[in-house]
Amino acid sequence: MSEVTRRKDEHLDIAISEDVEASAQTTWLEHVHLVHRALPDIDLDEVDTSLEILGKKLKLPILIDSMTGGSERGAKVNEDLASVAAELGIGMGVGSQRAALVDGRLRSTFSVVRDVAPDILVYANIGAQQLAEVGVDGAKACVDMVRADALAVHLNPLQEAVQPEGDPKYRGVLDMIANVVEKVGVPVIVKEVGSGLSREVAALLASVGVRGFDVAGVGGTSWARIESIRSSRSGAPEKARLGESFRDWGIPTAASIIEVRSVTKGLVIASGGIRSGLDVAKSIAIGADAAAMALPALRALSKDGRDGLKALIRSAAEELRLAMFLTGSRSLRELRHARYVL
Amino acid sequence: MSEVTRRKDEHLDIAISEDVEASAQTTWLEHVHLVHRALPDIDLDEVDTSLEILGKKLKLPILIDSMTGGSERGAKVNEDLASVAAELGIGMGVGSQRAALVDGRLRSTFSVVRDVAPDILVYANIGAQQLAEVGVDGAKACVDMVRADALAVHLNPLQEAVQPEGDPKYRGVLDMIANVVEKVGVPVIVKEVGSGLSREVAALLASVGVRGFDVAGVGGTSWARIESIRSSRSGAPEKARLGESFRDWGIPTAASIIEVRSVTKGLVIASGGIRSGLDVAKSIAIGADAAAMALPALRALSKDGRDGLKALIRSAAEELRLAMFLTGSRSLRELRHARYVL
Amino acid sequence: MSEVTRRKDEHLDIAISEDVEASAQTTWLEHVHLVHRALPDIDLDEVDTSLEILGKKLKLPILIDSMTGGSERGAKVNEDLASVAAELGIGMGVGSQRAALVDGRLRSTFSVVRDVAPDILVYANIGAQQLAEVGVDGAKACVDMVRADALAVHLNPLQEAVQPEGDPKYRGVLDMIANVVEKVGVPVIVKEVGSGLSREVAALLASVGVRGFDVAGVGGTSWARIESIRSSRSGAPEKARLGESFRDWGIPTAASIIEVRSVTKGLVIASGGIRSGLDVAKSIAIGADAAAMALPALRALSKDGRDGLKALIRSAAEELRLAMFLTGSRSLRELRHARYVL
Amino acid sequence: MSEVTRRKDEHLDIAISEDVEASAQTTWLEHVHLVHRALPDIDLDEVDTSLEILGKKLKLPILIDSMTGGSERGAKVNEDLASVAAELGIGMGVGSQRAALVDGRLRSTFSVVRDVAPDILVYANIGAQQLAEVGVDGAKACVDMVRADALAVHLNPLQEAVQPEGDPKYRGVLDMIANVVEKVGVPVIVKEVGSGLSREVAALLASVGVRGFDVAGVGGTSWARIESIRSSRSGAPEKARLGESFRDWGIPTAASIIEVRSVTKGLVIASGGIRSGLDVAKSIAIGADAAAMALPALRALSKDGRDGLKALIRSAAEELRLAMFLTGSRSLRELRHARYVL
Ligand SMILES: Cc1cc2nc3c(=O)[nH]c(=O)nc-3n(C[C@H](O)[C@H](O)[C@H](O)COP(=O)(O)O)c2cc1C
Ligand SMILES: Cc1cc2nc3c(=O)[nH]c(=O)nc-3n(C[C@H](O)[C@H](O)[C@H](O)COP(=O)(O)O)c2cc1C
Ligand SMILES: Cc1cc2nc3c(=O)[nH]c(=O)nc-3n(C[C@H](O)[C@H](O)[C@H](O)COP(=O)(O)O)c2cc1C
Ligand SMILES: Cc1cc2nc3c(=O)[nH]c(=O)nc-3n(C[C@H](O)[C@H](O)[C@H](O)COP(=O)(O)O)c2cc1C
Repeated sequence: MSEVTRRKDEHLDIAISEDVEASAQTTWLEHVHLVHRALPDIDLDEVDTSLEILGKKLKLPILIDSMTGGSERGAKVNEDLASVAAELGIGMGVGSQRAALVDGRLRSTFSVVRDVAPDILVYANIGAQQLAEVGVDGAKACVDMVRADALAVHLNPLQEAVQPEGDPKYRGVLDMIANVVEKVGVPVIVKEVGSGLSREVAALLASVGVRGFDVAGVGGTSWARIESIRSSRSGAPEKARLGESFRDWGIPTAASIIEVRSVTKGLVIASGGIRSGLDVAKSIAIGADAAAMALPALRALSKDGRDGLKALIRSAAEELRLAMFLTGSRSLRELRHARYVL
Repeated sequence: MSEVTRRKDEHLDIAISEDVEASAQTTWLEHVHLVHRALPDIDLDEVDTSLEILGKKLKLPILIDSMTGGSERGAKVNEDLASVAAELGIGMGVGSQRAALVDGRLRSTFSVVRDVAPDILVYANIGAQQLAEVGVDGAKACVDMVRADALAVHLNPLQEAVQPEGDPKYRGVLDMIANVVEKVGVPVIVKEVGSGLSREVAALLASVGVRGFDVAGVGGTSWARIESIRSSRSGAPEKARLGESFRDWGIPTAASIIEVRSVTKGLVIASGGIRSGLDVAKSIAIGADAAAMALPALRALSKDGRDGLKALIRSAAEELRLAMFLTGSRSLRELRHARYVL
Repeated sequence: MSEVTRRKDEHLDIAISEDVEASAQTTWLEHVHLVHRALPDIDLDEVDTSLEILGKKLKLPILIDSMTGGSERGAKVNEDLASVAAELGIGMGVGSQRAALVDGRLRSTFSVVRDVAPDILVYANIGAQQLAEVGVDGAKACVDMVRADALAVHLNPLQEAVQPEGDPKYRGVLDMIANVVEKVGVPVIVKEVGSGLSREVAALLASVGVRGFDVAGVGGTSWARIESIRSSRSGAPEKARLGESFRDWGIPTAASIIEVRSVTKGLVIASGGIRSGLDVAKSIAIGADAAAMALPALRALSKDGRDGLKALIRSAAEELRLAMFLTGSRSLRELRHARYVL
Repeated sequence: MSEVTRRKDEHLDIAISEDVEASAQTTWLEHVHLVHRALPDIDLDEVDTSLEILGKKLKLPILIDSMTGGSERGAKVNEDLASVAAELGIGMGVGSQRAALVDGRLRSTFSVVRDVAPDILVYANIGAQQLAEVGVDGAKACVDMVRADALAVHLNPLQEAVQPEGDPKYRGVLDMIANVVEKVGVPVIVKEVGSGLSREVAALLASVGVRGFDVAGVGGTSWARIESIRSSRSGAPEKARLGESFRDWGIPTAASIIEVRSVTKGLVIASGGIRSGLDVAKSIAIGADAAAMALPALRALSKDGRDGLKALIRSAAEELRLAMFLTGSRSLRELRHARYVL
């Protein structure tokens, strides 16, 4: 097993078995109250949760966010996520594909997604910093590898800074993104991984042609925490303490959704601590187009296999549908205009 | 016993013995502070708590809200509620009468109310959705069955959605209400059952001639919770979980009173978590004409019989009278103008 | 022992031994923050805490509020309070003197105050309702009995309503106060006993010539609670429950001070839950001229005798002086202008 | 050992071993949220934490605040603090030098700082009140003793008032400061010791030429608490209680930084409860130039010697650098303009 492969599996292990979420900070979605409509003027079975994102039709505004690939175990997870996504009509992202650019044998751990789910919405994934190294060609290769509908470029300055092997370099990253946006041939989404996007950052990205934003705010999985656990396992207590100090760093998901929406009419994906269909509904009411979950999907799969994951998504779907019914929202477009109180 | 009859009794059982109220949400009445008037300029025994509602005189602005009928046990409860209401000079609603429209033998489980209390204020009850099925004739039959002073039409989209046997269909309901308002021959009150009425819904209803509103906000009995308990008893864990997720859904009672009053000069009944005479006084100060209790009345009756219920109402009356005295309010009209702080 | 005498002693007993303060409500003085002045430009021993109230010089803006008399035990308490007050240069009120108007033998239980403290500020005390019964002559007799500098008329509608022997009648009370103000020959102070004075009530009283206000807000001794304990001891559970429900009723002391000061330039005494010299300092900064304590004085005396009471007052004085020093306030007048944050 | 020497050692002992911080009040820095910048446009190793203060270059905007000297033990602490400061490129203050003005043999307990750290930023220290006694010559002697870059004059009215040996006299202190500012030949900084500087006090000081402010707000070491412990050890329970009552008195550090910055463009040092590099970063974002720690430095030294202290500072430096990176701040000047939410 290569170093990268081992690290990817360690991430999965820690995410599944340890307490890796923010502890003193929440998504702030608990402060969003949808106003009940006692007279919805619709039937529950009229509620239509479908939407089109990046040219693909989805049955639900729910995505499984970028997580894995690059190892045997990652391949199995990707296969299961994809087959469930296909069955339920939702979309998904794959984890960072850099390893597969370096070592061609790893390509199938990502492309397996297309083997089982040829038609679903899939977004490729690469770190913004790695664009310098892999170039536009590398970006294109990521897209081709999974016949992606879009490329998700992730920003993770906190993780890079806390990760033992990290390389926290962001100078020039915006230019590289701009270049990739121009040449990669599919829409580019920019995502954080758990500290959120501010309106300044979203505006900057929008100005170079970025079409979508996956906010990944504070309140869910904390990479400072995950890397801190790794550091403390590998006997680097200072790095571990640094990670601990930044466990709750960032912009709460609800705040991030509102900030990003205030500067773009593009695609806004709510993520970071989305844990229920009510969270999905609230996220959409305050500005998102759809919502993505990472950690809960991984854990459901790990605990109860594909059935567990299906149950998770179905239960979120039921909650979302009910929240739509109770706000009189026939469609997601109407949900976007539902009255809420902060 | 028919299915409906069994379900009604199950509702009574669960309501009496389980923890069925909202858990993470309150009525917000605890945020309402009546301003003490150290020099009230009245005597306590001058305080007049009487009022006229829907053409009937009441000694207290307290109602026992719509609950039961449709089974032997429900008949007994209705009889007791009615005889206490008559003795204390308050009004009451009966539970949904649909079952008695279908099965004539159940009519007496409702009409017993008039046998023991020929003169009190009584409001009939039918689900808004069921109006489609039973029509204006059915609505009239409900009114006649209890010689009602008004017809209460309940909106319960959340309960319908969570209830195993539920049928969450609200398309066209407003038109049916409008039709019934026009033809049923008595004033129509619209009520929720625990998620509250918003100003939008109240305005819509007022525009088709609805004369009264029983807000039934969040903070008291939660039907999502009751149906969740039923689902989990009957081995439907997903439905149970869905109900649990919506246990606290809705508009807090105090907020609902203020919202509804802001769009109507009609009758506003505070309900949902009214648990004391201070709650009654606060509700009136912020806009209600009267306040209704369901769960506490049922529990008092179940625990200590008619005497228990009388003690409950009398203690609420004493608290109300004292709050009126201490705000210098001789009448409920004056209480409506008492100074309060939110 | 007469009924009244027995009741007075019961009040003392309960106040000393039971938990008789507000429970869910505070004085709100904890929300008042005096702004530290690191460079006070004065010496601590320059701080002058003296003031003149109602023509008497006091060494401290601290009073022992109206409490007792009317029994042997009350006489002893009054004697001790007065001798400590004289020694420390503060003022005091006596408890309600009505009993001594009815039964002349009780007069000495009040006048003992003057025996041991001929020169201190003393205010007489009578219930506002009782003015109807005792008339201006009775009021004058109260004043004469203790050669009072002022007459404190107490408003206690809540206590009267909850007290088993109570007689909650406030119609015409304002006129009686006006009459007494005109004819009694000393300034009249109006005081609550633990539910606070609002700006409306203070304005009304000021308009008929009342010169001083002792706010007695919520946050300290609760008479609803004391009478509730009495009711429950005497086997009247409903009254007991009513008292319990109103244990926290009223206007918090800090709010009451600000409200009353907003409508009068007269004397404003802070009371109700004053428990330290910091409370005294804060009360003055937000508008009071002085502050009064009842319960802590009684308890200190009961626990450690005159020395205990002296320690209490001295410690409050030290805290007050320190707060004045740290806000750069040479005099109470300057403390009235100290900067504070709410 | 002289009295003063013994007292200084007692201060060290208590500070190290007892719970001496504010208990019911915090720095309010926990309410300051730096806004995450997912796209920092810099590399972490570009982050430059250096600055110039009072003519000296520092590698970090971190100071070890005025603490000790005047005893053998104090000399050892000063030596260790200074050698670590030199090694890490930070500055420090010495404790009050008054004792060494009186007793020349104590001079080396302060000057040892220069023996081990000839080039670091050092500020001398004297109490504002003591200026009357020691005069401009004494102030100069303090500066010379440590070849200081500035003289820190401390204001500690609360400590003086609570300290058994205290002498709380502040009349004329401003004039003495003005005189010293004019003649001492180095810039004068004024500092509190744990109750904070208000904008009024800072404006007054600025008007007489004070160039720097070390806010020392509430939230960290409480001198009222330390002196209270001393009083209670020495059998003076009243003084002990007085100290306890004022344990949390003062202006929270974050508020004090904002207040002081609002009236000066001079040097503002954040102190009082600074406990991490995140606290340093937040302090700078809301207006400080640098931040100082006292208690944590002393405790780290006492627990783990020079290595412990180095670890403390290095960990704070890492946190600061990371916060700068994550707000896209290349320099401290840019951090001063980082977006934050209160
Ligand atoms: C095990 C795991 C691996 C992840 N790997 C990636 C990744 O490779 N690329 C990426 O952009 N985000 C990655 N993420 C971040 C997620 O896409 C998501 O933004 C974040 O976890 C917040 O969502 P959550 O709180 O629902 O987990 C990963 C998350 C988890 C839990
Ligand atoms: C056992 C029970 C049965 C009820 N049945 C009805 C009903 O048939 N029709 C209706 O409109 N509301 C019904 N309700 C709702 C009540 O009328 C009321 O709106 C709600 O319970 C909130 O008040 P509470 O918190 O005081 O219980 C019922 C409530 C309870 C507790
Ligand atoms: C034992 C006791 C007896 C009291 N008796 C009287 C009274 O006779 N007349 C009166 O005006 N207030 C009376 N009060 C009320 C006090 O004067 C004061 O307004 C109230 O107790 C609030 O202050 P505290 O919280 O410091 O006790 C009494 C209080 C106590 C504790
Ligand atoms: C043991 C100790 C001794 C101190 N001695 C002095 C002193 O002599 N002069 C002074 O200006 N401040 C002195 N201080 C106050 C500190 O400089 C600082 O302002 C205060 O402790 C708040 O910072 P902290 O919370 O990080 O301790 C002392 C603090 C401590 C803990």
